[in-house]
Amino acid sequence: MSSAVQPIVWARDHLRLLDQRLLPAEVRYLECRSPGDVADAIHAMAVRGAPAIGIAAAYGLVLALRADRDGFDAAEQMLAASRPTAVNLRWALERMRRQWASHRDIDALEAEAVAIQREDLEQNLRMGELGAALLPDRDARVLTHCNTGALATGGHGTALGVIRSAYAQGRISQVFNTETRPWLQGARLTAWELMQDGIPTRLLVDGAAAHLMHRQRIDWVIVGADRIAANGDTANKIGTYALALAARAHGARFMVVAPSGTFDLRCADGASIPIEERPDEELTMYRGEPVAPAGCRAFNPVFDVTPAHLIDAVVCERGVVLQPTADKLARLIG
Amino acid sequence: MSSAVQPIVWARDHLRLLDQRLLPAEVRYLECRSPGDVADAIHAMAVRGAPAIGIAAAYGLVLALRADRDGFDAAEQMLAASRPTAVNLRWALERMRRQWASHRDIDALEAEAVAIQREDLEQNLRMGELGAALLPDRDARVLTHCNTGALATGGHGTALGVIRSAYAQGRISQVFNTETRPWLQGARLTAWELMQDGIPTRLLVDGAAAHLMHRQRIDWVIVGADRIAANGDTANKIGTYALALAARAHGARFMVVAPSGTFDLRCADGASIPIEERPDEELTMYRGEPVAPAGCRAFNPVFDVTPAHLIDAVVCERGVVLQPTADKLARLIG
Repeated sequence: MSSAVQPIVWARDHLRLLDQRLLPAEVRYLECRSPGDVADAIHAMAVRGAPAIGIAAAYGLVLALRADRDGFDAAEQMLAASRPTAVNLRWALERMRRQWASHRDIDALEAEAVAIQREDLEQNLRMGELGAALLPDRDARVLTHCNTGALATGGHGTALGVIRSAYAQGRISQVFNTETRPWLQGARLTAWELMQDGIPTRLLVDGAAAHLMHRQRIDWVIVGADRIAANGDTANKIGTYALALAARAHGARFMVVAPSGTFDLRCADGASIPIEERPDEELTMYRGEPVAPAGCRAFNPVFDVTPAHLIDAVVCERGVVLQPTADKLARLIG
Repeated sequence: MSSAVQPIVWARDHLRLLDQRLLPAEVRYLECRSPGDVADAIHAMAVRGAPAIGIAAAYGLVLALRADRDGFDAAEQMLAASRPTAVNLRWALERMRRQWASHRDIDALEAEAVAIQREDLEQNLRMGELGAALLPDRDARVLTHCNTGALATGGHGTALGVIRSAYAQGRISQVFNTETRPWLQGARLTAWELMQDGIPTRLLVDGAAAHLMHRQRIDWVIVGADRIAANGDTANKIGTYALALAARAHGARFMVVAPSGTFDLRCADGASIPIEERPDEELTMYRGEPVAPAGCRAFNPVFDVTPAHLIDAVVCERGVVLQPTADKLARLIG
């Protein structure tokens, strides 16, 4: 998959985004010709994954500036508002702003977006090595949640990148991946990436993970992140916190894998991370068909916060922090 | 709902079972004219819920004996094999066997099946009163999982019966109910029953319950059971154990509501309860459409075991046991 299908393809006058809502049934690209097109694709989750939406937004700014050299501020605001929780989005926009402020050169701005995408892949390869080294030498059994692979990033993946690297080193014998309701990124995307790479995986409902850990050995739960606060509290896909509680109850270790752009030292702890709540229809409908009674109300937060004390390792391209604390993370990121 | 739609309707020469796989979109009954029809309906989950499948199986034996006075053993074996985890099924079959052995009278056997159904409703009303009394007097906020209502029982419900009774007493201000993957009994059935009764509920994905308890007050998690071991370990719908872990982490209390027929003192603890694993397709397909890549393997246990130490109250028609232990349960049930 990593080489065969590229989720984010820059074509200079437009951005091609693989419409991940249609996977694995269909491989179809959206052509984004304006920052509004990109913001819409992010908001509608055609492109998703914290690093990927940062990359897409960076290209959205290039499209904005090509159309209007005075369009930076408006485009930045629109893109920043497309999703609230992942800080990589804001991080990429701020990096692009610094580049534009320094040179006010569209070619240089474009090169910055390309660099963000390329560096993300490089960081993922580095995190893959660092994270894999934490796993047992052989026969490791790991669980992952949501999709953190090539589809969610500039390539290789964060948590899934660690799994890819560790599998290539012969460390992993079995992966389990949650389906990840309500968007089923695990069933649709992660299972697909793992199967493309020939990595053995079993799909389970999110609620079965605690039972799995009770009845079978799981060495590590490995997840990505949408925002990591200064004290190590980590916002990630809804359901992550429940996995961390189950891991702690069963002696499985818990690893968060995220590039430095995912850290937000301005958030002291998880309580200050905004948690996106999405429409009721994401639960009450499936592919346009009702699965709940008409008028049924939902509670649909799409991220949760795992407190730092449940996290055994944070893996970043700059290094690994065990049992994260504010001091340790400040030394790594500050 | 409780009065408007009856999930199990005995019609003497056949059994009408509401096909719960089609709810809430469609109200359609299966006509079961043989024990094989009933066993198929149980296995395919057209009828589900531990008490309801016991009731349906009892009527299945009456159909068997009407066709062949020597057919008890074969029909009992077939019905017992239709689902492995819920002990109510075996309990109902054994009760019917004792009745048949005593009188060998088909009318008396039929009356026994009718009594099982009627007594289940009576027990649920009693458990509703007992369980409701454990809740705060007002403004209680509760979470339930799967469907334990009139659709799963002889009427009123077990866990949902407690919620109905407590709401009628003015104790509950807000219910939350999980969607309950993979069969979505929460979204399709529990939300429907609650809305029919005008009880305010919010639907959430199973993985969001820990986040809900972290961010909002939940007083009680209230669930049913498919089998309760001698020491109080409780098998229930997959995902229950994760809810119990989250409840304990957040100070929410955890209540199991089940009639005495759900207790299996022959199982010393949860490790001896058989856990049904169902086909991969229940996760990889949805309504005939793939949601995962072709060939994707699944891990699909449909029950899990919540250890007794995470359970604050067991409510049975015979009484309430707080902080269950083998001794306390033996005094109640033995």
